[in-house]
Amino acid sequence: MRLTDDPTIVGVIGGGQLCRMMCEAATPLGLEVVFLDPTPDAPARPVARRQIVGEFDDRDAVAKLVQASDVLTYDIELADPTVIESLDPPIPVHPDPKTLRLIQDKYRQKTALDERGIPVPAFESVETANDLKEARDEKGLPLMLKAREGGYDGRGNLLLESENTFEAGISEVSGRTMVEEFVDYDRELSVIGVRGPTKTDVYPATETVHRDEILRRTLTPARTTETVLERARGVARQVLEVMEGRGVYGIELFEVDGSILVNEVAPRPHNSGHWTIEGAETSQFEQHLRAVTGLPPGSTDLRCPTVSVNILGVDGERTVNLGGVERILDEPRVHLHWYGKKLERPLRKMGHFTLTGSDLDRLVERAQILHDRLRFQP
Amino acid sequence: MRLTDDPTIVGVIGGGQLCRMMCEAATPLGLEVVFLDPTPDAPARPVARRQIVGEFDDRDAVAKLVQASDVLTYDIELADPTVIESLDPPIPVHPDPKTLRLIQDKYRQKTALDERGIPVPAFESVETANDLKEARDEKGLPLMLKAREGGYDGRGNLLLESENTFEAGISEVSGRTMVEEFVDYDRELSVIGVRGPTKTDVYPATETVHRDEILRRTLTPARTTETVLERARGVARQVLEVMEGRGVYGIELFEVDGSILVNEVAPRPHNSGHWTIEGAETSQFEQHLRAVTGLPPGSTDLRCPTVSVNILGVDGERTVNLGGVERILDEPRVHLHWYGKKLERPLRKMGHFTLTGSDLDRLVERAQILHDRLRFQP
Repeated sequence: MRLTDDPTIVGVIGGGQLCRMMCEAATPLGLEVVFLDPTPDAPARPVARRQIVGEFDDRDAVAKLVQASDVLTYDIELADPTVIESLDPPIPVHPDPKTLRLIQDKYRQKTALDERGIPVPAFESVETANDLKEARDEKGLPLMLKAREGGYDGRGNLLLESENTFEAGISEVSGRTMVEEFVDYDRELSVIGVRGPTKTDVYPATETVHRDEILRRTLTPARTTETVLERARGVARQVLEVMEGRGVYGIELFEVDGSILVNEVAPRPHNSGHWTIEGAETSQFEQHLRAVTGLPPGSTDLRCPTVSVNILGVDGERTVNLGGVERILDEPRVHLHWYGKKLERPLRKMGHFTLTGSDLDRLVERAQILHDRLRFQP
Repeated sequence: MRLTDDPTIVGVIGGGQLCRMMCEAATPLGLEVVFLDPTPDAPARPVARRQIVGEFDDRDAVAKLVQASDVLTYDIELADPTVIESLDPPIPVHPDPKTLRLIQDKYRQKTALDERGIPVPAFESVETANDLKEARDEKGLPLMLKAREGGYDGRGNLLLESENTFEAGISEVSGRTMVEEFVDYDRELSVIGVRGPTKTDVYPATETVHRDEILRRTLTPARTTETVLERARGVARQVLEVMEGRGVYGIELFEVDGSILVNEVAPRPHNSGHWTIEGAETSQFEQHLRAVTGLPPGSTDLRCPTVSVNILGVDGERTVNLGGVERILDEPRVHLHWYGKKLERPLRKMGHFTLTGSDLDRLVERAQILHDRLRFQP
């Protein structure tokens, strides 16, 4: 590990809040961050050594990033594995571009997991309207229609509940769509996993609460049985075995009647793992940096029960202040993480705050009260 | 609090490790840092919005910093209060330049504390060789001769133990020297205090271990009686009342026969408070930023017993790697903080690491073992 005149530079494709929180975790390890993002003055800018302004799939821009870095990683799945591979970068890339490509295609992702015996919801490829009709006739409604690529935060997903929505679904079918059984889960869970240079590890299972398919809150440890908590971690360990390359992975799960199904995998630190900054012995951002630079993983142990709350934009696009933030910061054991985005937009992730304590139910109540105090003010 | 298009900029005079760790704590609060330092690419550079290169007392450079900032603070006592005052900055300055001036002169500092009834070692001004001889005749040896200004990490201090060193001391006397009684303390302690916009608070008392007047380790909570721990915090609260302006203060204390004496005060986050990053609910760096920007203080509660270990340069000046760092990072609940200095120098503070756990004595043992594994390698 180089630590004085010539520190290790981590190149990151994407300069959003994930990169910003990586930067906050980088300098304690003696690392520096250079990142690529099309938006000038992206969220990571004020804490990074340097931003390269360019599109994620701009060959010249990615080449410039590789040139400036000792190891390459990403904070976003939109990084282009073909561009990275075509550059044949003479530096390590983590996770492997093959993993990125696998994850970008939800059908290939599910197939790879399924082939390894990892439990996933029943799914199949749907390329034509006829394929979709056959799936309906065979499985019945509801069904979840998904674009195989490009979707996140629920974009590209359409729940086909009735014959009406089914007709709307028909028009969404393309050569690159799939259907999944609709999972009537008891709980959504997430496990943050890490593939380090010599070992893998997983954090405690988190309960995730979504609305409109956007993550709103996480509760750690998830309020389920010890058996399910350990089962979730076990499945996450299996998932890590399918992935190639080092780094942190966010593994989204469904809990159904005590069983675990894998929903989706992200090859990077994940919104459902922000709680680790205060709630675990090592944050997922430090963990990711350790992994991609070849350092040993830090402890994934829980420090204490933790709730994280996303602060989402309501209106926009507009410049705003966040009113009520002083009242949040005046509460003991509450920590703010602001992402430095220039404009509010509806449902945009603007920041989050985390509460730690001893009683998870009490934290959930306090989280609601504190969240209600926040107001975006033009 | 401004949080979107126009974030609050904290201007910092000094860009060393303290500023670097402030930067790591700034962006979560939606703050950005611009700093002034004479060394290009100072330790804070890779995590700050911008560095202004210039001397701490360069009027034009400080003016440029003020121009770029919404609030001004420092990571070093060498900031020049006269320059700051002469600029009459139209932005808040914390702590107050008057406090900076008071602290820069150890004799005035001690006098101000003494006048408020705060216990300090017996001291007096020494301006001539004759003054020093009179002090010796009155109090006897040993005596501690101190330069009133410019000393830190023990520089400018001379212990007059015998008639031989006394003669050497004579030649060090200037119009700006003082003597103090030599305190045969049982323990050195430190309390990190914070003056926020509406209230003050103090962290748990820390035991500090020095060698050659350089801090080597901190142990929190200090291994002394509950009574002494609370007495130390009480004295620290009194000290905070003497200081003007908001911010974090490092308050160094002696424990003697169960009593507390104040040694020195620093108007900024302090080496003896680095343990707060992992060991307290709010780090001293977040605390300082909250205070100077007018946000309410965070909780000063202890998370768990914590030991911090300074990593000091041995040789130099030279470019080095730090060998053995992987073995440190492979230990559970050990966190590295590297300062990004370009060159090793003897006794230079290059970084620190922190251990958290449940048994302080066990942490002390482990700290020693881990420290022994580190080797600077050219």
